[in-house]
Amino acid sequence: MALASVIGIGSTCYGALEKSFIELSKEAAGKALEDAGVRPDDIDALYLGNFAGDQFIDQNHLASYVASAVGLNGVPATRVEGACASGSLAIRQAIFAIKSGMCKRVLVIGAEKMTTLKTAEVTRILAQASNQKLEVNTGLTFPGVFGLMTNRHMYQYGTTREQLAAVAVKNHEHGLLNPLAHMRKKITIEDVCSSTNMVAEPLNRYDCSLISDGASAMVICAPEIASDYRNEVVDIIGSGQASGPFEIFLNEDLTSLSSAKLAASRAYETAGVGPEEIDFAEVHDCFTMAEIVATEDLGFFEPGQGGAAALEGLTKIGGKIPINTSGGLKSKGHPIGSTGIGQGYEAVLQLRGQAGNRQVEGAKIGLTHNLGGSGGTCAVHIYKRRF
Amino acid sequence: MALASVIGIGSTCYGALEKSFIELSKEAAGKALEDAGVRPDDIDALYLGNFAGDQFIDQNHLASYVASAVGLNGVPATRVEGACASGSLAIRQAIFAIKSGMCKRVLVIGAEKMTTLKTAEVTRILAQASNQKLEVNTGLTFPGVFGLMTNRHMYQYGTTREQLAAVAVKNHEHGLLNPLAHMRKKITIEDVCSSTNMVAEPLNRYDCSLISDGASAMVICAPEIASDYRNEVVDIIGSGQASGPFEIFLNEDLTSLSSAKLAASRAYETAGVGPEEIDFAEVHDCFTMAEIVATEDLGFFEPGQGGAAALEGLTKIGGKIPINTSGGLKSKGHPIGSTGIGQGYEAVLQLRGQAGNRQVEGAKIGLTHNLGGSGGTCAVHIYKRRF
Repeated sequence: MALASVIGIGSTCYGALEKSFIELSKEAAGKALEDAGVRPDDIDALYLGNFAGDQFIDQNHLASYVASAVGLNGVPATRVEGACASGSLAIRQAIFAIKSGMCKRVLVIGAEKMTTLKTAEVTRILAQASNQKLEVNTGLTFPGVFGLMTNRHMYQYGTTREQLAAVAVKNHEHGLLNPLAHMRKKITIEDVCSSTNMVAEPLNRYDCSLISDGASAMVICAPEIASDYRNEVVDIIGSGQASGPFEIFLNEDLTSLSSAKLAASRAYETAGVGPEEIDFAEVHDCFTMAEIVATEDLGFFEPGQGGAAALEGLTKIGGKIPINTSGGLKSKGHPIGSTGIGQGYEAVLQLRGQAGNRQVEGAKIGLTHNLGGSGGTCAVHIYKRRF
Repeated sequence: MALASVIGIGSTCYGALEKSFIELSKEAAGKALEDAGVRPDDIDALYLGNFAGDQFIDQNHLASYVASAVGLNGVPATRVEGACASGSLAIRQAIFAIKSGMCKRVLVIGAEKMTTLKTAEVTRILAQASNQKLEVNTGLTFPGVFGLMTNRHMYQYGTTREQLAAVAVKNHEHGLLNPLAHMRKKITIEDVCSSTNMVAEPLNRYDCSLISDGASAMVICAPEIASDYRNEVVDIIGSGQASGPFEIFLNEDLTSLSSAKLAASRAYETAGVGPEEIDFAEVHDCFTMAEIVATEDLGFFEPGQGGAAALEGLTKIGGKIPINTSGGLKSKGHPIGSTGIGQGYEAVLQLRGQAGNRQVEGAKIGLTHNLGGSGGTCAVHIYKRRF
């Protein structure tokens, strides 16, 4: 029961790159179109996931700009924004467009160019995804939000510093195997735990994801025509999106995000599968604790058990449920608008059996989990190999 | 053959308003939900049309924020941006979501809060909808773009200063009849032609649309359930979107916009009607010349005849094809993200026969035309009364 099918994927490296926003978008789109064997003229719609190009690169109306640059003449081009989940929301609009019967082949691009600005300015722009008046102006930016969640998780469940560190170490191990990853560097639990670069207690620099440039793209089509384009078709069988309380203090429980649980339950329901059938997942590890919470909200582990699971190695490649085989936001990088589509890129690569030395053996079903703000938005997609 | 149906509409006044972005959004959404008789719990998705809230009000991730504020707990909330066409693109995503069968009732809100900033800053933000490097940095902002188009139209077709003025005078006449309009003020052709407030030759202040705050909203549902909610159902029977050259200099002809012609042909095709069957239209009169070009691109008048038609009164209420009965961007106002949904609001009001002393008698089919940038984006929708 596929909602839509992925027939082409493409991605740039993630990192602090010389290339412009448009160059990155063109590169990712060109690779995806080539991978799919689809010409620009055959594309019925473009969706662009982008968070804040108007501030990062002083340019708005970017979907039209990218359409023009990629050579999609006349093609409807729409930018979609949902903070750090922008990319996944773009994928979801493509699914709607295809399931509506009004589009057959849709190009989805996620792109962000962030490293042109200084870190303080990037932090200011990112903080606009949370409530400026009630949160940011009182001093609460995202590291603070996830620091609060971490402290509560530790208090409530006994989660430890070492368990958090295990998430970072594992994602760096995975990222070392991904040629597209931003920070390909081995780190140890000792490195993380002994760091004096505190960001928002207890989270230090090793617990935080990266500021990156990058673009990823997918060609998505109606399930019934997918096999006309390639043999290794990957179907999107589940899609769930939810909003949650916009401000972190409105959450009943700081150790779980209602939007993630709701988006996951919707995705599982549309797919007709449960967490036990997922072979691997890309989750939104903007901070190490976010990954632990995600693996619990998605039903892979019981509430409070995500930290222990990470330290035991259950989330490594070869473990019970490999998480962030790409390296995640922590090592692969986090170009905001691109992240959700980069997650889908990794899922498709794994399901095609093309993930090289980070391949999850026998992977048949993969899941992506993409968060916006402090859970104001969450989107979950489930991908399945058809062949 | 309805794509989707409108069962509720709501709008704030447009103008320089005391209310905040969230207050405006809540007001418009609340009115639309009440008009439809739909509770927030029955909404399956929210689409928010917004251009640049991150700069206008220092707040991004606005769809989630609005969902939380309106009480749409857990509802998928997605912001859509396509410059000045953002509102219409949001409507289009709602159509896709409904036609996909994955959503039954969708709330669409368009909102922008612009008057908090000084005009020079607003102009800078608006200019980000065109190419910063190749256009804006060389001195070409939007008044300049439409000034170029105007000069060419005058050169090629003999369009006159008086004909341009007739557009402004007519839209102010219509706006006087609209209690929600921003600038309700009678002006004369003499006022316009004698103005010394030149903006971009030959366009003076009277040729330009307004900088406004405002929000409009619609409840859109699957056609088969619309009559469960109300008797006066208005169906969306046509929807067309197109991208065009991102930079104005890439247009083969400065007197016409390819995206508008393409979007219109797609909308006419899905609706199965032609321009001769349209009873009235709301078009994107960001500048007087933009309305003239729109009425030609939409097929209401032959190329070059739009100016004469306006001066002859053919586009007035009571004329051959009433254009911008709401007052248009020129008099009603132009809160960017809201504009496309405000156009739909007027179309539904007219088709329900609720437009009071600006009612187009016997109106059965109406059209909206919403432009982004200098034609980088255009969306056209066709509405039809069912009852």
